Amino acid sequence: MIEQLMNQAQQAFEQYLQFSYSKRKEFLFSIADEIEQDRNAIIHQAGLDSNLTEIRLNNELNRTVFQLRNYAEAAERGDWLNVSIDTADNQRNPPKPDLRKTCSPLGVVLVFGASNFPLAFSTAGGDVASALAAGCVVIVKAHPAHINTSNLVSKAIYRAIEKHQFPSGIWQHYIEEQRTETQQLISHPLLKAIGFTGSYYGGKAIWELANSRPEPIPVFAEMSSINPIFIFPEKLHQDSENLALSIANSITLGAGQFCTNPGLIIVKKSEILNHFIEKVSATIAQTKPINMLNKGIAQFFKENRTLVLSQPNVTLLAENHDNHELHDIPSFAKTTATEFLNNPLLHTEVFGSFSLLIICDNDAEMLEIAKKMKGQLTSSLMMTENESSQYPHLIAEISLHCGRIIYNQVPTGVEVCQAMNHGGPWPATTNSFHTSVGSDAIKRFVKSISYQNFPQHLLPLELKNENPLNINRTINNVLSKASIQ
Amino acid sequence: MIEQLMNQAQQAFEQYLQFSYSKRKEFLFSIADEIEQDRNAIIHQAGLDSNLTEIRLNNELNRTVFQLRNYAEAAERGDWLNVSIDTADNQRNPPKPDLRKTCSPLGVVLVFGASNFPLAFSTAGGDVASALAAGCVVIVKAHPAHINTSNLVSKAIYRAIEKHQFPSGIWQHYIEEQRTETQQLISHPLLKAIGFTGSYYGGKAIWELANSRPEPIPVFAEMSSINPIFIFPEKLHQDSENLALSIANSITLGAGQFCTNPGLIIVKKSEILNHFIEKVSATIAQTKPINMLNKGIAQFFKENRTLVLSQPNVTLLAENHDNHELHDIPSFAKTTATEFLNNPLLHTEVFGSFSLLIICDNDAEMLEIAKKMKGQLTSSLMMTENESSQYPHLIAEISLHCGRIIYNQVPTGVEVCQAMNHGGPWPATTNSFHTSVGSDAIKRFVKSISYQNFPQHLLPLELKNENPLNINRTINNVLSKASIQ
Repeated sequence: MIEQLMNQAQQAFEQYLQFSYSKRKEFLFSIADEIEQDRNAIIHQAGLDSNLTEIRLNNELNRTVFQLRNYAEAAERGDWLNVSIDTADNQRNPPKPDLRKTCSPLGVVLVFGASNFPLAFSTAGGDVASALAAGCVVIVKAHPAHINTSNLVSKAIYRAIEKHQFPSGIWQHYIEEQRTETQQLISHPLLKAIGFTGSYYGGKAIWELANSRPEPIPVFAEMSSINPIFIFPEKLHQDSENLALSIANSITLGAGQFCTNPGLIIVKKSEILNHFIEKVSATIAQTKPINMLNKGIAQFFKENRTLVLSQPNVTLLAENHDNHELHDIPSFAKTTATEFLNNPLLHTEVFGSFSLLIICDNDAEMLEIAKKMKGQLTSSLMMTENESSQYPHLIAEISLHCGRIIYNQVPTGVEVCQAMNHGGPWPATTNSFHTSVGSDAIKRFVKSISYQNFPQHLLPLELKNENPLNINRTINNVLSKASIQ
Repeated sequence: MIEQLMNQAQQAFEQYLQFSYSKRKEFLFSIADEIEQDRNAIIHQAGLDSNLTEIRLNNELNRTVFQLRNYAEAAERGDWLNVSIDTADNQRNPPKPDLRKTCSPLGVVLVFGASNFPLAFSTAGGDVASALAAGCVVIVKAHPAHINTSNLVSKAIYRAIEKHQFPSGIWQHYIEEQRTETQQLISHPLLKAIGFTGSYYGGKAIWELANSRPEPIPVFAEMSSINPIFIFPEKLHQDSENLALSIANSITLGAGQFCTNPGLIIVKKSEILNHFIEKVSATIAQTKPINMLNKGIAQFFKENRTLVLSQPNVTLLAENHDNHELHDIPSFAKTTATEFLNNPLLHTEVFGSFSLLIICDNDAEMLEIAKKMKGQLTSSLMMTENESSQYPHLIAEISLHCGRIIYNQVPTGVEVCQAMNHGGPWPATTNSFHTSVGSDAIKRFVKSISYQNFPQHLLPLELKNENPLNINRTINNVLSKASIQ
């Protein structure tokens, strides 16, 4: 079974390699069109599978089709190829050869569907869109929690494949029956890269297995982030009411099931702090528990919540607990900086609507926390303009530990655009150079390659003298759209 | 000791972070100047340490200072930062935030000196130049075979540090006394990346140790490549004499101690083949054995050579063996495609002046060899214009397995320029996206970071509205040097 999947994928890859960027683009647009065609059925099924609301799922579907089209357009625009050309110099001693560098797709990519985004990070989600845009072929492992949704989306993709008469192995749906089959897939010599969004344990296990292959392959896993919000005293003093409200809402949004959910709030002791705590607590306590994605996730949330709450010097400040098995428990707790700095368990991600307030005695503790912070997708700074000039070292330190740094906004909400970086140092992801959101995500699925002394007719289009794709290229160290004489 | 090294490095990093790109550039230029100042002493010492000729070492020193200046200029030019900006849209529902993406240095980088390039890939070599250009600070582990050279070069670097009154921890020289110290360095939480050029076993061991850390860090290791040359029949027929000569010279150049040394020659059976074999054999047999870099390398060469020669159906065609302990043994051997396809030991890199001719019965065998080829730094195609149109699948397959594909030139000689890719799929390197030669090598030592909703005064220079560095930036999906109104 696995052998057949992989061979079909590899055969399709060899054909897909010959297709132009514009053909790739049309294909991705067709997938988007076909998904929109089935919008109602997909939304309905995704609701059953994930307990997410219709509004949210409609937004997620919009995002899914936007990603497909946006990455396809970026792929055609060609900036991501990072083309550079150094022309020959035969007068030099020794002669300088003609060298032209571009990117080429890695091959067969395995994408794991994500539990918390049944559409935008799953069957036709961001990893799939970027791998296909890069020229790779894809095998998607359906997430077990939303196989029916995945089946519906896969039908849309199959229709797009048929419409373009593309080889069927270009995109394949894989539903795990036995764990060992997935392990076989990961270990298969023809597999060249993996995309994953999920838990730290899941991501790390896949990464380790991929690294243990005779030929290790890159795993782009987005795994674990607690997205600290640093609140500075003057800001808190000026704006505690609004801050409390927006942060409480960010904590509980969608039962907290976002990778950018703020799990840590770092503040300095102050008089106004009690007011802030009361306001956050009141909002959290009034937030209605809702269904989480599935039982497993609800249980995992509760276990981790209990783990953190049971640590010394951790005090529960507010919760809304209705004892419903599937529901979240909006929760807010506090601890001291000393405790946080000394207890590694307090750095655990509690995936759900839980946040821990860390109260620092002074700036030094805040800086120490910034230094000890594990890699994060995001860190937020809540500060006045006045404060923004007072803490250069702290801001620099915070920026070292995250992939996106945010000024006076909450971290939830991940814009799909080229300037988005959805990544960060370990354990946020396995590779802090790359992003999994925004069109630069394409770059994860290519290798660099230089063509030396090649005749024009054998060069990929983007490297030919006349620049037929009309893309930006660095020619002898100068970026332009010029052709070469 | 290690603790002190790392703390000094980290402190220096925090200061270096505040320095402008032009200040970095001046620093790298000063290092180059100081090295040139000591040219005679450095060349003399490197000759003693490495047995390399004065001409070669002068060229290598030229290359070393060129790299320092070239990467510094590229760093200032800023294209490598891949800056993109998506401006806010408050009219949209929900409002679109302002997002600005750039790269930031990883932190403390450990660079291992390479045995075969005591200057260009060692103490002030390509990895050091690119890490410093990226804004990282560096600890260099001197290669044990050329510690005295390394000491001389390090003095030049220290003078440059003093001249600029930079913190001394910005670049530090580390001489291993015990293996465990180096392991401690690799495992230290403040270490953020590693650069390595050397053997597969060395690179893999470092990579595994770095992956076993609680926070794994990227290892950019360039490890193992046998650089196949595929010769096509018509070309062989037309040009066997020249081909034989240039390939034999490429095999024996510098006792074969280059990572791009061609260790495999793949040909199809033909009448002219005997003539080619005779000519290569005669040239190899006449090539004078010379001193290799050191005893260890000479011994390793001979062991691996014996290993390959002792395999079934491997025939020695020519050698020049003078029984000198330090000398290489220019060697040429042959085997069949079937044998190569079935015996993994024949894929071993023999680091030195040895090459194996693989004789294929037909095109299918040639394609099969291309498919089974491990990741390579380079692959070369020797073909006529006529043949260049006849083998699209074979060329596509070959390009999947290498980082640089070369048309009718030998692989030795690695141009330092932006369009050079010195990298390739495992085991050639640990990361096929990146290069270790050419200014794009800088990108290995940074992470991506987005600034969301940031006030102008807090943004890095490259992200400010007015574009003070005058660099290329993608603003709302369009690349330009424009400022933002």
